[in-house]
Amino acid sequence: MADVRIILVGFGTVGKGFLNVVIEKKSFLKEIYGLNLHINAVFKSDGGFISNTNTGLDIQSLLSIKDYKEHPQWVKDVKAYDKIPEMEADIVVELTPTNIGDGEPGLGHIRQALKSGKDVVTANKGPLVVAFQELITLAEENKRFLHYEGAVGGAIPVFSLARENLKSSKIISIEGILNGTTNFILSRMVSEKIPFEIALKEAQELGYAERDPSYDIDGIDAAGKLLILTNTILRRPEERFVKFDEIKIESIRNITQEAVELAEENNLVIKHVASAKEGKLEVGPKLLPKTSPLAVSSTLNSITFKSDLAGEITIIGEGAGGRETASAVLTDIITIFKKRIKTKNNN
Amino acid sequence: MADVRIILVGFGTVGKGFLNVVIEKKSFLKEIYGLNLHINAVFKSDGGFISNTNTGLDIQSLLSIKDYKEHPQWVKDVKAYDKIPEMEADIVVELTPTNIGDGEPGLGHIRQALKSGKDVVTANKGPLVVAFQELITLAEENKRFLHYEGAVGGAIPVFSLARENLKSSKIISIEGILNGTTNFILSRMVSEKIPFEIALKEAQELGYAERDPSYDIDGIDAAGKLLILTNTILRRPEERFVKFDEIKIESIRNITQEAVELAEENNLVIKHVASAKEGKLEVGPKLLPKTSPLAVSSTLNSITFKSDLAGEITIIGEGAGGRETASAVLTDIITIFKKRIKTKNNN
Repeated sequence: MADVRIILVGFGTVGKGFLNVVIEKKSFLKEIYGLNLHINAVFKSDGGFISNTNTGLDIQSLLSIKDYKEHPQWVKDVKAYDKIPEMEADIVVELTPTNIGDGEPGLGHIRQALKSGKDVVTANKGPLVVAFQELITLAEENKRFLHYEGAVGGAIPVFSLARENLKSSKIISIEGILNGTTNFILSRMVSEKIPFEIALKEAQELGYAERDPSYDIDGIDAAGKLLILTNTILRRPEERFVKFDEIKIESIRNITQEAVELAEENNLVIKHVASAKEGKLEVGPKLLPKTSPLAVSSTLNSITFKSDLAGEITIIGEGAGGRETASAVLTDIITIFKKRIKTKNNN
Repeated sequence: MADVRIILVGFGTVGKGFLNVVIEKKSFLKEIYGLNLHINAVFKSDGGFISNTNTGLDIQSLLSIKDYKEHPQWVKDVKAYDKIPEMEADIVVELTPTNIGDGEPGLGHIRQALKSGKDVVTANKGPLVVAFQELITLAEENKRFLHYEGAVGGAIPVFSLARENLKSSKIISIEGILNGTTNFILSRMVSEKIPFEIALKEAQELGYAERDPSYDIDGIDAAGKLLILTNTILRRPEERFVKFDEIKIESIRNITQEAVELAEENNLVIKHVASAKEGKLEVGPKLLPKTSPLAVSSTLNSITFKSDLAGEITIIGEGAGGRETASAVLTDIITIFKKRIKTKNNN
């Protein structure tokens, strides 16, 4: 049995989803992987829960307490940024909200973790979009793992698919529907024959879209994901890393009902497609045959890898959700643990 | 650089596809994985090419020679079954034609390989359908790997998806379109509004269906694949292995044009679906919503894994083809090699 000591940063939907999954999967992780997860600290923006035992926090008490400030392990005003280097831990799980402007606060947390010899698992796109090259280099220099399966496609295992399953193939291009909100809106415009504004309002009412929906519908979220996919999967070691401003981005705001209907008449469908092909990075509305595997409906995400041997492989699943993202985070933790065991035995 | 010595059994479309891929990927395998593949022997039913050097056969000469019996390394009447135990090799690649009656000749080859301490990679369903439990046990007892990614879904990495990418999830059920021929026929019945017989004839003319199409259209091929999927992915260690005669199989022969059109009017589509759900194994025609990720067209295959954490993950790709299957075989070889390196270092 191996003990894995975790510092969790972020106590929102995804952070709590992760903690719930850790409870639910406790015996599964022990039986199948010989893993014993200890949550040694959980940080919020205004303080943190810090364990004073070797066995970590009682997660259930964190999730069930009414006023978190009353929790016996709550420490006010303490910062993840300051505590990460001081604390002993194996993995920092970074799940603060995405900010693709400056990547903070996640960027600072990840830097601190890697520099102080901790592996990192994150579902936060911000730091990767802002500082991909820096973080990859930092991880390499410190011989740490930086895994981020949950950052793109939620529960869909895009990175491990490329890394593990298509080993014999060279991946040539990537195309995907990477944002569930825009896909929901476009799907409703087709199925209900409603204009963009009504479909957007519906998405907002259902909680799929934010009050300011720009991040999703203007393609910023999808472009961030495309950057991470490209730098991770398509980039060859000798090539430079792509930057956000190289991506040509077009919104779905101007898609009319007429355009949607015209597509329909021709057995086509308008989708918001992110693509990395022949060195060109684009996010924008695109006509797809209705029968294309990529043309999924509702909030689903889809990604097609075109490869030299395996041809086109498409993978589809839920691209968001606390539980789905938590499943990716937990898979990353298991993967890192297995690699650490291997590394230990090789030395 | 590691040398991997291979015995190939089978010199048909898939076997030759594999050899072509080995040539094409020679420098890729060296650079990325430090692997040097040597093909030490290639067996056909009436003899074999056997290398008399340490560096293996000159593959190009095998593929380009007009009359294989004229090849300097050709040995008439020698049998893979007899030579496998005698020869030194790391991996036996078994690519003889599928026979789900008695699994032969593949079954004998795989037994010989495992018993004589060789790892096995195969894309041949027959031996697995006939003797799944025996072969898995034999591999375990001899501490050998038996990988068969190419046996189900061609290029689609179904087994490694379940094994590597969804580590944190428990897979609850499997549904899939596992036979490209029936899917082509059903797709043409929808798109061209033609009856079953015409679509079948077209599939035969294009080389997708055999003269006796029963193996495909009566669901036997799909059922064999479902058995392998179920025993590999759904079966828990304490559970028994399922057998072929437990699968309820229904053909697509009786699907009428009227049924196809009626489905179409209701935004549904008839597909030949294999499913393993709540202990029930079935292959048969099923109505799917047109927007279902599973409802792919033409010769594509699709598989949906329903899991406790990641939700429904669907993967789509070409389910057949020499090159696509070879990509799966080569991925298996790389995977085994990486595990062998790890095992070596752990001892």
